[in-house]
Amino acid sequence: MQELDISEVFRAREVLKEVANETRIIGPTKLADYCQVYLKPENLQLTGSFKLRGAYYKISQLSEEEKARGVIACSAGNHAQGVALGATHNGIKSVICLPAGAPLSKVEATKGYGAEVCLVPGVYDDAYRRAIELRDEKGYTFVHPFDDPLVIAGQGTIGVEILEQMKDVEAVVVPIGGGGLISGVAFAIKTLRPDIKVYGVQADGAPSMKKAVESNERICLDKVCTIADGISVKEPGALTFEMVKQYVDDIVTVSDNEIAAAILALLEKQKMVAEGAGAVAVAAVMSHKLPLEGKKVCCLVSGGNIDVNFLNRVITRGLAESGRLVSITLDLPDTPGALSGVVNVIAELGGNILSVTHERTTTSTQVNGCLLHIEMETRNKDHIGAIKNGLTDRGYHIVADYNR
Amino acid sequence: MQELDISEVFRAREVLKEVANETRIIGPTKLADYCQVYLKPENLQLTGSFKLRGAYYKISQLSEEEKARGVIACSAGNHAQGVALGATHNGIKSVICLPAGAPLSKVEATKGYGAEVCLVPGVYDDAYRRAIELRDEKGYTFVHPFDDPLVIAGQGTIGVEILEQMKDVEAVVVPIGGGGLISGVAFAIKTLRPDIKVYGVQADGAPSMKKAVESNERICLDKVCTIADGISVKEPGALTFEMVKQYVDDIVTVSDNEIAAAILALLEKQKMVAEGAGAVAVAAVMSHKLPLEGKKVCCLVSGGNIDVNFLNRVITRGLAESGRLVSITLDLPDTPGALSGVVNVIAELGGNILSVTHERTTTSTQVNGCLLHIEMETRNKDHIGAIKNGLTDRGYHIVADYNR
Repeated sequence: MQELDISEVFRAREVLKEVANETRIIGPTKLADYCQVYLKPENLQLTGSFKLRGAYYKISQLSEEEKARGVIACSAGNHAQGVALGATHNGIKSVICLPAGAPLSKVEATKGYGAEVCLVPGVYDDAYRRAIELRDEKGYTFVHPFDDPLVIAGQGTIGVEILEQMKDVEAVVVPIGGGGLISGVAFAIKTLRPDIKVYGVQADGAPSMKKAVESNERICLDKVCTIADGISVKEPGALTFEMVKQYVDDIVTVSDNEIAAAILALLEKQKMVAEGAGAVAVAAVMSHKLPLEGKKVCCLVSGGNIDVNFLNRVITRGLAESGRLVSITLDLPDTPGALSGVVNVIAELGGNILSVTHERTTTSTQVNGCLLHIEMETRNKDHIGAIKNGLTDRGYHIVADYNR
Repeated sequence: MQELDISEVFRAREVLKEVANETRIIGPTKLADYCQVYLKPENLQLTGSFKLRGAYYKISQLSEEEKARGVIACSAGNHAQGVALGATHNGIKSVICLPAGAPLSKVEATKGYGAEVCLVPGVYDDAYRRAIELRDEKGYTFVHPFDDPLVIAGQGTIGVEILEQMKDVEAVVVPIGGGGLISGVAFAIKTLRPDIKVYGVQADGAPSMKKAVESNERICLDKVCTIADGISVKEPGALTFEMVKQYVDDIVTVSDNEIAAAILALLEKQKMVAEGAGAVAVAAVMSHKLPLEGKKVCCLVSGGNIDVNFLNRVITRGLAESGRLVSITLDLPDTPGALSGVVNVIAELGGNILSVTHERTTTSTQVNGCLLHIEMETRNKDHIGAIKNGLTDRGYHIVADYNR
């Protein structure tokens, strides 16, 4: 196992001044009321994520001969863009293998940063195998997304920046996928300021590092499933596993609904776009998964590269999750005035109707009945309860309520 | 007409240090390729817009006796939140009249900043009349959203910050609604650095200041209609009209589609949420409405308080506008294999199908035909053209194409 020295992180910091933004900490925010939440916004980093740091530093340290041959990487996401921009800035060639089904926007962005894109039929694993083949055939240097000490040193610069920009920070909360980001950040912080807590956050559907640490064994999950695709990793790295065990205080997980609520909160309160993986630290704090009462906390927002079509769905889910959007279905007699009775109740109680749909073809409990679907904006879950009670009290029959 | 002195702007700056963020300029961005675009992100200001500056400074300058009576304002948007927070920070009472139909999120936010909210049945004009009544009855000080020299001085602090943070700026582009923001910014910039160009941007559907300047007369538009509700103003202020004539180099307008494309670009490229009014300066630069070739340009992003349900619709419209989302309808024989032929052509040409709907109940040109609606992601408008040509070449009959 290669060991990392803190001087490597400071060296990375000097090298990164050539290209990376020193993202400025934002806060205090109103994202939680039991602690003071600050954000380290790496979604505002060039390429839209922290990945540029590690990739750029790794590439900068190649020998001239390695640089002349070029680099290769495999990624459907942020690492691709980090490597592409890192290589282009260093004036060297990059080839990125992407699974053929990768979103068009990511393919275009990777090309836009100057990489040659190689679309590989199949899934991530197929693209990975092709990248290794190409490395062996053409002599490219493979840039690993996380399990490399130089990549980790690059990510560690974020830890140094947090300490400089927020001298009284008490806890830092960091997303974990393969573990490269938290290894670098925790290493830097625990080396320089061991009194500061460092917590990791994974998705409920991809808890590989958490399970590995608990069983003290690098396990490989059979499957992973989460909206936080950037941290959807089946197996931790060998080096990152050791570093997380040594430097990280605890790891918690968050659900997709909690992640969606965090993305929505960042969007509305901070006017900031975070991707699923980028929002998990905030999600953990918002849903109170960590012992942070009264503390000054820095949440690392690791990236903002979310597909906007997907963002639409997340907004909807986040609104539903926080009780601000609800659909109810009523079984109504199909007579004049029936609708107006219902909408009057809702109006009185302050719900804002977004859509009304009558359904006459399906089975209603009444022969001359119809189903009425109403979608409305509400203030919170209590407000939804009040509206449902109001309707029931007036004799209306609610047959379903759900989030659209 | 009260005249403004630049010392008032500097005084406002000192006062605002108590509460406002000195938002940091972002850039250079990749929002246009013919000039260097920087952003002054007032969407990241407290309350989500620049309005806090003018409202806070105005309130801070009230006499002790006026402060004791409290302030009143009328607004369905950012001014409400600015006045509420400004008053609360100064330890005084605020009453905000809102039209009863105002979005729940804005009502809640205004209450959250400590204001007493008075919901007035009707539209903005009704709420305005009620605010004036309450002022007269209760002795509150009315805080005008734009036509007040102290409010304008507060907004002018943005101009001073731009000059300090971006010493080589050559042009500043600013949204115009009532004209308070641009009056302050243009006054500060032209007083201190008359060589810098200051341009204003209005919405096509609410060009009140542009028309007023052109006809050299404060006109009142019959109606206004734009997605940029924050600058949807029928009549410029008296003071702002004079200041815009004196200090602003030119005013252009942008369409709702151009605004939607700008909101989307800010979201995707800058990971930043802007509201419609907040994005018009960027929209004007992106759609090349101003003579900025090769220049260093600062676009003022005035606010980010966009309803997230509305943001969903804007994303969709922006994707369609930029050729990245399209729906086409084909008239197909209703036979086995018909669908697979179509989707194969689209797959070959690289379109990503999002949804497929068969419609059999409507009239097809063929007796045994059906309509097939296909919604897909595409790379750009050329790509859409290629897919449509590909389908037509294989004999498929496209009966409609449209943006959903």
